[in-house]
Amino acid sequence: MDAVDWAIIKSTPLFGAMASQTAQALVGHAAPRQYEKGTTLFLQGEPAEAFFIVLDGWVKIYRTTPDGLEVVLHVFTSGETFAEAAIFLGGRYPASGETAAPSRLLRVDGAAFRARIEERPALAMSMLASASYQLKFLVEQIEQIKVRSAPQRIADFLVRMTEVRKGEAVIELPFEKGLLANRLGMKPESFSRALAQLRAHGVTAERGTISIADIGRLLSFVEFVPEDDA
Amino acid sequence: MDAVDWAIIKSTPLFGAMASQTAQALVGHAAPRQYEKGTTLFLQGEPAEAFFIVLDGWVKIYRTTPDGLEVVLHVFTSGETFAEAAIFLGGRYPASGETAAPSRLLRVDGAAFRARIEERPALAMSMLASASYQLKFLVEQIEQIKVRSAPQRIADFLVRMTEVRKGEAVIELPFEKGLLANRLGMKPESFSRALAQLRAHGVTAERGTISIADIGRLLSFVEFVPEDDA
Repeated sequence: MDAVDWAIIKSTPLFGAMASQTAQALVGHAAPRQYEKGTTLFLQGEPAEAFFIVLDGWVKIYRTTPDGLEVVLHVFTSGETFAEAAIFLGGRYPASGETAAPSRLLRVDGAAFRARIEERPALAMSMLASASYQLKFLVEQIEQIKVRSAPQRIADFLVRMTEVRKGEAVIELPFEKGLLANRLGMKPESFSRALAQLRAHGVTAERGTISIADIGRLLSFVEFVPEDDA
Repeated sequence: MDAVDWAIIKSTPLFGAMASQTAQALVGHAAPRQYEKGTTLFLQGEPAEAFFIVLDGWVKIYRTTPDGLEVVLHVFTSGETFAEAAIFLGGRYPASGETAAPSRLLRVDGAAFRARIEERPALAMSMLASASYQLKFLVEQIEQIKVRSAPQRIADFLVRMTEVRKGEAVIELPFEKGLLANRLGMKPESFSRALAQLRAHGVTAERGTISIADIGRLLSFVEFVPEDDA
């Protein structure tokens, strides 16, 4: 494998946050292979023998329904791994895999991979650490983008802090506003400005106590999306 | 631990997709403990001795700068784990942890945890499988929400398929539109409608060939956010 291939492997969540040497020890000495479009990589129900790292191309993962219909579950591309959960668990492939375009893949043999980890459990720990970093990063990203505006993000947090679902509600912030701003991915100034904007939605703050005039109204503000044609 | 505690542990990414027995084998027999607000759990630079699962409350992770300033890196709450990467890697805590509110935490001893995994590497595999499922789920969620509208998501995909960054561009779709719709989290009908809407942005499709009149213009459409006060 060349430097470009390694860079791609190191861009996957499972191998990203580890030393190159560790990644190398995990994937072993297999060489990447070029696959034509339409190549079956594995079939649903077969014993899981390998997982794959996509270096280039597209792979579809699909299931066949009892009446012969093909349902695509995922489409994977460069920098993504697939079928690794089946290898980790040592079972059967829960779905089939087929290249959807000419693809360059690294096939990592499952038995060899498991043997390497059994010999050196620290390798599994490195993957877990990498996965764990990536999980936190993604959770943070989602929290910061899922509710669009800063006032919506604060409102979202507030409605989660109470079980009241209609009428008035009073919430004690569990800690200082600076921490909450951090949790919501905002600068303290943006937080204060956004909190002030929530007055228009019936939210008043006095130190750590937040009064909500109508939680139902705030809930609809949280869920309000200005435009959606998806 | 009671059923509620177990439900929370099973809602964490690392323990979510495994049998309860496996989760139990991993966390061991430690009992959750109640911590007062302001309790230091560990300090930056100390050898990492344990990781934590938040059952209730709030924990802040912070670093202290050379000039004594406290910088908060994360705030964790119920259903989240922290400091596990330090335990997986067996090093020192890269930051300090302190409860930001009264909190109920499960402290999992690192040495015991590593010993359990060394004895039964399959336990690490279960965690890896769980992390791997969760990673895919989060990546998918991000792809589906980060660019808001369906036409923006298609445009985002198209600009990634070419290295051209100004003027005209022609792209061959690597596979049928149905797969692309799946990858972008859309129904085929929504996909066709959204693709048609892209005509207004200079995108014309003829079978698998997509012509883009001005890639710069399409790029600004991808990055257009109707409103942002964060």
